[in-house]
Amino acid sequence: MEKQDLGRTEIASLGEFGLIEHLTKNFEIQNESSHYGVGDDAAVIDNTGFLTVVSTDLLVEGVHFDLMYVPLKHLGYKSVVVNVSDIYAMNAQPKQVTVSIAISNRFSVEALDEFYEGVNLACKFYGVDLVGGDTTSSQKGFIISVTAIGQAKEDELVYRNGAKPGDLICVTGDLGSSYLGLQILEREKQIYLSNPGIQPDLEEQDYLVGRFLKPEARKDMVDIFKQSNLVPTAMIDVSDGISSDLMHLCKQSKVGAIIEEAGVPIHNDAKMMALKFQLDPLTCALNGGEDYELLFTVDIKDLDKVRLMPDIYIMGEITEASEGVKLHSTGGKIHDLVAQGWRHF
Amino acid sequence: MEKQDLGRTEIASLGEFGLIEHLTKNFEIQNESSHYGVGDDAAVIDNTGFLTVVSTDLLVEGVHFDLMYVPLKHLGYKSVVVNVSDIYAMNAQPKQVTVSIAISNRFSVEALDEFYEGVNLACKFYGVDLVGGDTTSSQKGFIISVTAIGQAKEDELVYRNGAKPGDLICVTGDLGSSYLGLQILEREKQIYLSNPGIQPDLEEQDYLVGRFLKPEARKDMVDIFKQSNLVPTAMIDVSDGISSDLMHLCKQSKVGAIIEEAGVPIHNDAKMMALKFQLDPLTCALNGGEDYELLFTVDIKDLDKVRLMPDIYIMGEITEASEGVKLHSTGGKIHDLVAQGWRHF
Repeated sequence: MEKQDLGRTEIASLGEFGLIEHLTKNFEIQNESSHYGVGDDAAVIDNTGFLTVVSTDLLVEGVHFDLMYVPLKHLGYKSVVVNVSDIYAMNAQPKQVTVSIAISNRFSVEALDEFYEGVNLACKFYGVDLVGGDTTSSQKGFIISVTAIGQAKEDELVYRNGAKPGDLICVTGDLGSSYLGLQILEREKQIYLSNPGIQPDLEEQDYLVGRFLKPEARKDMVDIFKQSNLVPTAMIDVSDGISSDLMHLCKQSKVGAIIEEAGVPIHNDAKMMALKFQLDPLTCALNGGEDYELLFTVDIKDLDKVRLMPDIYIMGEITEASEGVKLHSTGGKIHDLVAQGWRHF
Repeated sequence: MEKQDLGRTEIASLGEFGLIEHLTKNFEIQNESSHYGVGDDAAVIDNTGFLTVVSTDLLVEGVHFDLMYVPLKHLGYKSVVVNVSDIYAMNAQPKQVTVSIAISNRFSVEALDEFYEGVNLACKFYGVDLVGGDTTSSQKGFIISVTAIGQAKEDELVYRNGAKPGDLICVTGDLGSSYLGLQILEREKQIYLSNPGIQPDLEEQDYLVGRFLKPEARKDMVDIFKQSNLVPTAMIDVSDGISSDLMHLCKQSKVGAIIEEAGVPIHNDAKMMALKFQLDPLTCALNGGEDYELLFTVDIKDLDKVRLMPDIYIMGEITEASEGVKLHSTGGKIHDLVAQGWRHF
């Protein structure tokens, strides 16, 4: 939430360039490849000998986040996470980010400081340098555009299009928790709106709420793959929901897939909370989105490597394209997977 | 202007991923360094042996553009121009762009097609590849985020911070025309709003209106510098207005500057139109912004090289920081330059 009166500095008092200086002064350069950062027409990145990997996302208040329950510091952190997650999903290392924001004058400099504090924490944690951005005003709401730039050796890069029939389908963590964390926050928002006197009851659901408010990208997995000498055949991060993301992977790889219901990892808290909301836990796990786990496929010969890795769940197998993308339920039935994903339009 | 009913396709009918496919299907890859484009978690760029240069801008409807008089195709074109201009201002060659948009459902697919047609034209003209982006909805208005990626050899890169006392201050074209083009469009908008029956009268001011609606980045200059074996000591593109941009350059170079009023290039149409609007032509030229010319400094030993180049105006000289940033008027007086620039807040 933005600060209201206490120590409020109007953005106009700094001016656009003063504002950029103010917001970026605490960022330290961490990568040798960050040749030149904020302050010129463009950032300069030295990637000699590596491929450069670029990913970008646009986040809009009221569509991607609700400042009623997303603190600005978490929002700044998550904005970076969402993008570096895309770089990890290429099996690459993020090195730089640019962060652009458009803001209405209802935000104070202190509010933006909180946002950039989150950005800075994420930059430090993921070892990326803020090398540029743009700061402008909006007529309404808060808009964030982040571009992440990473590097990888050519033979390490993993695309979405390399899966082949017989490959194992793996995921790095439980699914649906972020979605259920969001449901809790949404419920409390509705209660608050109808009765502002009532304190929010998050039911000690730190795990679920945390998965939504402060997700982490799986930086660790890319390191583990390297140590294990494993290169997945295809990989994507789980942002839209695993049904949707798996279908992207299958479409690009021109394959089908079969997922075992029993292989879909669901945290116990998520199961309980889904039932409380009268939702199907499996549907939440398949379509929830914003988990930021890595969904990847490996050749069957790498089964033993994958088995030894922490956090890895084997969910199913890649099939021929003609077989479609299916779910094998614990009851023994075969269902079509439906990609609901996030629908913004 | 977006199309209203004729052949309107709702964005929701394509879905987010269908929309991206639809919008990007006519883009062809032009650069060998564009290893992998749209369709994965991140684009892959092969910049072996070159430095990578990255620039990003966020454009917001109602702040940076007004769809009452900016056709979407021009907007798409200009969105790319604004960014590649920043890359040229580093004396680098743009190679890739990512384009992200957030749009409310008042826009149809046909409207977005027009926007992307403009993006595509600019990509072709400047030889850059569209390699990624994000497409999402907004609660209100149209928001555009473009990131441009370029490359340069280390010894060719030109920063803002290399100007030194005695250097000549040059600009690649006339100033203030874009601002006056905007004034004409703003005037006609106001007339239209108070009486929609009246047809806009652009007074055959094609040059001024064109400078605003379809500016070009100075791709040609970077080539000419190379042919002439000239590396400017500092460079910036004129986006905020030359007063503001010169002050950035001086601040970063830790120098002062003196500009000759007689050396400020103003197109005759701009002079006439400024007087018609009862504006001072010089003020329009100094503070107008959005000219997208290159402002650069060269060592005095390169005077003969600069003299032989087309379109180059020598405006003044770099001085010691203690002398400040000044204007020497034709009347012989010395004034402080004031950076008004664009004020969005």
